[in-house]
Amino acid sequence: MTPFDHLPQVSFMGPDATEPFALRTYDKTRMVLGRTMEDWLRPAVAYWHSFVANGLDPFGAPTQQRPWFQGEPLPAALQKADAAFTFLERLGLPFFCFHDRDVAPEGATLRDSNAHLDHVLDRIEQHMERTGIRLLWGTANLFSHPRYMAGAATNPDPEVFAYAAGQVTHALEATKRLGGSNYVLWGGREGYDTLLNTDLAREDAQLGRFLNLVVEHKHRIGFTGTILIEPKPMEPTKHQYDRDVATVYGFLARHNLLGEVKVNIEANHATLAGHSFEHEIATAAALGLLGSVDMNRGDPQNGWDTDQFPTNAQDLSLAILEVVRAGGLGQGGFNFDAKIRRQSIDVEDLLHAHVGGIDTMARALLIAERITLDGALDAALERRYAGWDTQFGQAALSGAMSLPMLAEHAANGGPGPSAQSGRQEALENLVTRLSC
Amino acid sequence: MTPFDHLPQVSFMGPDATEPFALRTYDKTRMVLGRTMEDWLRPAVAYWHSFVANGLDPFGAPTQQRPWFQGEPLPAALQKADAAFTFLERLGLPFFCFHDRDVAPEGATLRDSNAHLDHVLDRIEQHMERTGIRLLWGTANLFSHPRYMAGAATNPDPEVFAYAAGQVTHALEATKRLGGSNYVLWGGREGYDTLLNTDLAREDAQLGRFLNLVVEHKHRIGFTGTILIEPKPMEPTKHQYDRDVATVYGFLARHNLLGEVKVNIEANHATLAGHSFEHEIATAAALGLLGSVDMNRGDPQNGWDTDQFPTNAQDLSLAILEVVRAGGLGQGGFNFDAKIRRQSIDVEDLLHAHVGGIDTMARALLIAERITLDGALDAALERRYAGWDTQFGQAALSGAMSLPMLAEHAANGGPGPSAQSGRQEALENLVTRLSC
Amino acid sequence: MTPFDHLPQVSFMGPDATEPFALRTYDKTRMVLGRTMEDWLRPAVAYWHSFVANGLDPFGAPTQQRPWFQGEPLPAALQKADAAFTFLERLGLPFFCFHDRDVAPEGATLRDSNAHLDHVLDRIEQHMERTGIRLLWGTANLFSHPRYMAGAATNPDPEVFAYAAGQVTHALEATKRLGGSNYVLWGGREGYDTLLNTDLAREDAQLGRFLNLVVEHKHRIGFTGTILIEPKPMEPTKHQYDRDVATVYGFLARHNLLGEVKVNIEANHATLAGHSFEHEIATAAALGLLGSVDMNRGDPQNGWDTDQFPTNAQDLSLAILEVVRAGGLGQGGFNFDAKIRRQSIDVEDLLHAHVGGIDTMARALLIAERITLDGALDAALERRYAGWDTQFGQAALSGAMSLPMLAEHAANGGPGPSAQSGRQEALENLVTRLSC
Amino acid sequence: MTPFDHLPQVSFMGPDATEPFALRTYDKTRMVLGRTMEDWLRPAVAYWHSFVANGLDPFGAPTQQRPWFQGEPLPAALQKADAAFTFLERLGLPFFCFHDRDVAPEGATLRDSNAHLDHVLDRIEQHMERTGIRLLWGTANLFSHPRYMAGAATNPDPEVFAYAAGQVTHALEATKRLGGSNYVLWGGREGYDTLLNTDLAREDAQLGRFLNLVVEHKHRIGFTGTILIEPKPMEPTKHQYDRDVATVYGFLARHNLLGEVKVNIEANHATLAGHSFEHEIATAAALGLLGSVDMNRGDPQNGWDTDQFPTNAQDLSLAILEVVRAGGLGQGGFNFDAKIRRQSIDVEDLLHAHVGGIDTMARALLIAERITLDGALDAALERRYAGWDTQFGQAALSGAMSLPMLAEHAANGGPGPSAQSGRQEALENLVTRLSC
Repeated sequence: MTPFDHLPQVSFMGPDATEPFALRTYDKTRMVLGRTMEDWLRPAVAYWHSFVANGLDPFGAPTQQRPWFQGEPLPAALQKADAAFTFLERLGLPFFCFHDRDVAPEGATLRDSNAHLDHVLDRIEQHMERTGIRLLWGTANLFSHPRYMAGAATNPDPEVFAYAAGQVTHALEATKRLGGSNYVLWGGREGYDTLLNTDLAREDAQLGRFLNLVVEHKHRIGFTGTILIEPKPMEPTKHQYDRDVATVYGFLARHNLLGEVKVNIEANHATLAGHSFEHEIATAAALGLLGSVDMNRGDPQNGWDTDQFPTNAQDLSLAILEVVRAGGLGQGGFNFDAKIRRQSIDVEDLLHAHVGGIDTMARALLIAERITLDGALDAALERRYAGWDTQFGQAALSGAMSLPMLAEHAANGGPGPSAQSGRQEALENLVTRLSC
Repeated sequence: MTPFDHLPQVSFMGPDATEPFALRTYDKTRMVLGRTMEDWLRPAVAYWHSFVANGLDPFGAPTQQRPWFQGEPLPAALQKADAAFTFLERLGLPFFCFHDRDVAPEGATLRDSNAHLDHVLDRIEQHMERTGIRLLWGTANLFSHPRYMAGAATNPDPEVFAYAAGQVTHALEATKRLGGSNYVLWGGREGYDTLLNTDLAREDAQLGRFLNLVVEHKHRIGFTGTILIEPKPMEPTKHQYDRDVATVYGFLARHNLLGEVKVNIEANHATLAGHSFEHEIATAAALGLLGSVDMNRGDPQNGWDTDQFPTNAQDLSLAILEVVRAGGLGQGGFNFDAKIRRQSIDVEDLLHAHVGGIDTMARALLIAERITLDGALDAALERRYAGWDTQFGQAALSGAMSLPMLAEHAANGGPGPSAQSGRQEALENLVTRLSC
Repeated sequence: MTPFDHLPQVSFMGPDATEPFALRTYDKTRMVLGRTMEDWLRPAVAYWHSFVANGLDPFGAPTQQRPWFQGEPLPAALQKADAAFTFLERLGLPFFCFHDRDVAPEGATLRDSNAHLDHVLDRIEQHMERTGIRLLWGTANLFSHPRYMAGAATNPDPEVFAYAAGQVTHALEATKRLGGSNYVLWGGREGYDTLLNTDLAREDAQLGRFLNLVVEHKHRIGFTGTILIEPKPMEPTKHQYDRDVATVYGFLARHNLLGEVKVNIEANHATLAGHSFEHEIATAAALGLLGSVDMNRGDPQNGWDTDQFPTNAQDLSLAILEVVRAGGLGQGGFNFDAKIRRQSIDVEDLLHAHVGGIDTMARALLIAERITLDGALDAALERRYAGWDTQFGQAALSGAMSLPMLAEHAANGGPGPSAQSGRQEALENLVTRLSC
Repeated sequence: MTPFDHLPQVSFMGPDATEPFALRTYDKTRMVLGRTMEDWLRPAVAYWHSFVANGLDPFGAPTQQRPWFQGEPLPAALQKADAAFTFLERLGLPFFCFHDRDVAPEGATLRDSNAHLDHVLDRIEQHMERTGIRLLWGTANLFSHPRYMAGAATNPDPEVFAYAAGQVTHALEATKRLGGSNYVLWGGREGYDTLLNTDLAREDAQLGRFLNLVVEHKHRIGFTGTILIEPKPMEPTKHQYDRDVATVYGFLARHNLLGEVKVNIEANHATLAGHSFEHEIATAAALGLLGSVDMNRGDPQNGWDTDQFPTNAQDLSLAILEVVRAGGLGQGGFNFDAKIRRQSIDVEDLLHAHVGGIDTMARALLIAERITLDGALDAALERRYAGWDTQFGQAALSGAMSLPMLAEHAANGGPGPSAQSGRQEALENLVTRLSC
């Protein structure tokens, strides 16, 4: 018996359905630009938000009750796993994601913790085989335990670095065992609270070494998934090193990891970093780093990670469009790194949230499809940069012309080039028209 | 006759002076950690804020009157240059900085503009020789003219790219001619207002090419100053490519410019990007990019570039400390990229602002000196990371130990490492004690 | 001849229209919840953004050319008025709004300025009669001229207060003459740049007096429109006194102006103040202050007033829903306080922007209609607070029960009340479903 | 035995002391502007941050160990009380503050909880008598328990309102019993997470009623302390009703509570609301609402309540100056609503933090004294508004002149008033000079 047993089976019921748990847009088999909706989105449920979180916040106690929040940790972890797969089956999405400590409790020693994880993963493996639900990515929680309070890889104590290595070794191997498509590193404590006790150069070297070790081990064990860094600018630290996509690019370049590591972009992390979600996706695509997506949204008036489910398809469509332009996420996917509000204490709320989220993503995908098929936006872009495809443009871009040669060209050009309208409002109207 | 003629000569008068224009701390010959205050700070006045700005803001007309705001542009430019050097002499700082268009008016054609610039620089050169005041850096204004509304190097039209090349060629050569120590590129319009009309990959390629052309030309003409990029996250654009130091690092790595280009860090740009000023300086130092500094401060409650003069030495001391730790700015310096408020309509206000600013910097430098000589902060840092200097730490960092070897080490370590206090409050108290 | 002559006539063409200037949703005669779309929205064009702005920003020169930006100011003002009405006719919206200085140039003296205004208003009056286009509100520009740099009503100099009184007297009378529905005061400089030179209590008394004088004069001349304060938290000042709706409420209460003055809420001002747009509208409705709306949107990543046109109907629908719940805006309306981007240099861009904006508003209104007719959201709200309609709830709310009586009630209630789910995700899904 | 037993006794040791726990500036008996430092500051320690918090954050487990975090709750609460007073004695500050639930555990029923509180307060009362340490204010925690997840007074369920009334009745009476100087209400959950499930007008009426009930009960029981509202804009809610001082003013006016209720201003809450700390204090003073202060600081780069100890006296001096100008806080005081960082796991860190904080406040007070005695800042302010003290100024302000009379005055004044410099930089320099 799990608290999710009585939940209805979610299914696609078409745009006119008004049942609260009906999917109105997400039809996983619907073809969109040559592949199915499911193939484009590869949606996943986050184990931590959906099965571990309890409504605790910095000013208040847990509000959400689940049977496995009580009792002996290891049996409770099995109970949680059973319930999780009941929920996943009801929802009908193809993937889930987890941290090692979401699934199984920390033990007295690292060996104990590893044994706990293996024990629960046996059960999860059975559920996966039974249901066909797959693992989008696994990860190790290197931020909750007090030992990591000053960072894991960037800890001033190399023993903590080693402990983190121990956890990642096991989590990476577990991810491989479950057939995970990716392995994620979010550096929640890889940053600082004050520069006064921090040596940036040392910590950068440590973080670079750690990631290289992970990549080496991936190859050693033959894991074929992608290693992903998840950028976030701050919180819980004052400053987190993997601030945003462009910062991660520089880090990877510095440590010879380009080509080995990509990014897992989270919408709310993007906005906390001062970027739009679509900016981060477009940047990752332009830099060859687009790996996977953590789907959620932040609150525009609050300065912390609110991790809400997406509800506005038009907003989201610009991000999905960038994914479509990039040809999709490959072995990545869209993981709902989103949680229900603290007041949403009924188990139905968890299902509402996911149904609304996946339907919003599906609508956004259809908008991206319409924009793509319409072609006018891409055509406008082509037209805008057409000068760069001329002989002169090519010469300027290739380096065939030096700075003084370009200067001479300009000096002979009279009063200079005339500007063209950026047409922002017309393009916005185009997107709006295709959004409805 | 200039409006600055009646201003008093600023000079160091000691800590007990109460005269409004007295320097109470900045004694340019005072030795600090082995070099003079002037050598550490190399302070500069910004031509644009001090001699070109007029109090205009997006909601109101100019408020500050100067004779050269009227009349024929070219003679007015000479009048402005004369006045500027009167002010610089009164103030007694060793450096100034300028954009090409601050100094001389845009002409009908690029050749005309170049001729205007040369004409006024003749006068400025005379003033420099007469007064001994030097050029910290020059730059080209590639953002004010409508032709640059969609960017200079990143413009969708290669003709604009060429025009920008023309301007930079001349400004770089002019900077060399005046003996400038650096040449700065601030990409005020190198960014976008909407992704809808923007091709990030194209614009990145263009910007990379442009900067390579500038570096090549620098070597071609034998300019020995440093090429500097000035990061800013936004404003006037929605998004600016050179967002912050870490972003610029990635850009330089991608375009093979590491070792050729450094950064000019502005305090208010740092805070707009979500960083502390000291973070950006420490990051640049750690990445080998520390070039020069634009000294100002933002308003903590306002979301745009307020460019105010610094007034709080304790705040500033953490940034200066990072410069001291880095061994100084080399041929860089501290340029006051700061402006008086729109209501500060008296010429005295301009002098007040600079006097307060330089004295604040000098106090911050003395705090940094005390922290350095005291040694306790550095010692605490050493102690905190001491484990990394052990044999095990070195093995972990060097890559001599693989991930599974580290895991084995950790698994044999029992319950794991015990955490040490981060001692943030104690370290803050230390800095505070040395600040008074 | 005006630059708008060649623009097409905008008209409602139905949801399937793809012509760039077609209205696809805004059918002004369509009935929505008992009144026409036009009656609900009462849309207006802002004279300043559409006919006065020129693309100037703090880092760059004007980019948008209009014939009336050159030549003698007074004839140019007439030319501008002619062109404005051509644009208004093409667009087909029923209202416009203006500042005195948008319409006619400042003269050498207050009398001259007044005469200029009257002269141009003669022409505008003719256009209004000819076209049937009406004035939603008038206002006086008390922020652009240098005399107002330290505020108008809150200026430290009472002569400036008097000058502002002179301008408002004339602008209020002009608004009455043109049959304006409202008169707005936006206190762009009523605030401070630094507390160091500011006496808050004095300035509050001045502002209270000024507004009382305006209200008295309104009654004296028999103006039946509503006096509106437009809140904004900052910009151009560091801090503006009329920060948000709740702050204005306190100000009005303190100066005995409740019942006499309402608010004109701007979307981008709401977000700069840290509120959602719908929060400000709902707050004004709850406090009896809802007067009119300035329609625009800000950029979520930029910290200044970007004044963009709305494009996302689902986002906007929550604000419109609050207006619908409040029974509409009465003699208020929705003024497009929005401007085209600096790169939008074609006159077509101005039309695109307004067409997109009004259609977005119309779609948002239809969503609000669907939510209202559906009834489930209101029903959920009723249900949530139903306890307050019981006898006990009424006793608690009315004050019939004292604090210790309530305490006794609670102490007898055992372990205390059980919480109900807030159902946020389910309600968000409901809104999302009705948005498509 | 408590973990604080080995801490040294803190005492004033003069400006040259370098001992880590020495007070270098705070000499409680030093006279400043006619009263002692202790009388001006009336500093207090917050029970919750210092004795209840454990380093838990949204991403990690507790890091700080105290014996009373384990074992039976009620004996542990007594142990905590003993330890708290040991710490308070070591520190030597005169006041503390508490929530009911900080001091004693929640019981199964309200009566049980009350009994727990009374039981522990017996012990605390003994400590207070023994040590002379006093209660600055008490309060009830109406935000941590799940029953309050949707608010206390503003809960949609009147039973929760009653439960809150029960808690406040007891906490108010307990505060009276202990001789508390004030009683504070912070409405941590009085706000909303989404407008979709919120009726603003209902909740405003509930909150107004609740506060009136509290004020009535205060008078009923003869409590002579001040009732204080503590503004905060958000967190944990998306929007909190008591946003800032100006918002609270409007609320009090609406519910006839002016004169009965004042505000407890927190520095970090001010900055989260988009205000400077000194703005909120100056506003409260101008509106007659200045009650007490929660002393801390936020992180300028992080968007949540970081509650750090103050370290920068120059920054703080502007806030303290406003308190001095207002004649002090009366029966209010400065409560350290500040916590040590999660990594500060040694008990010494708690003492460092308070010692640094109180010394920073003392230095800020001395700066405010110097500014006051110097007189130049106040004189500049007088001079700036001098026009308002003329006959004309008085006539304008008193309402003796109508709007058209003022207009006539202005029209006869020629080109209008000439502006005076705001002198911001000169005034900033003045403050800076007096800060060192």
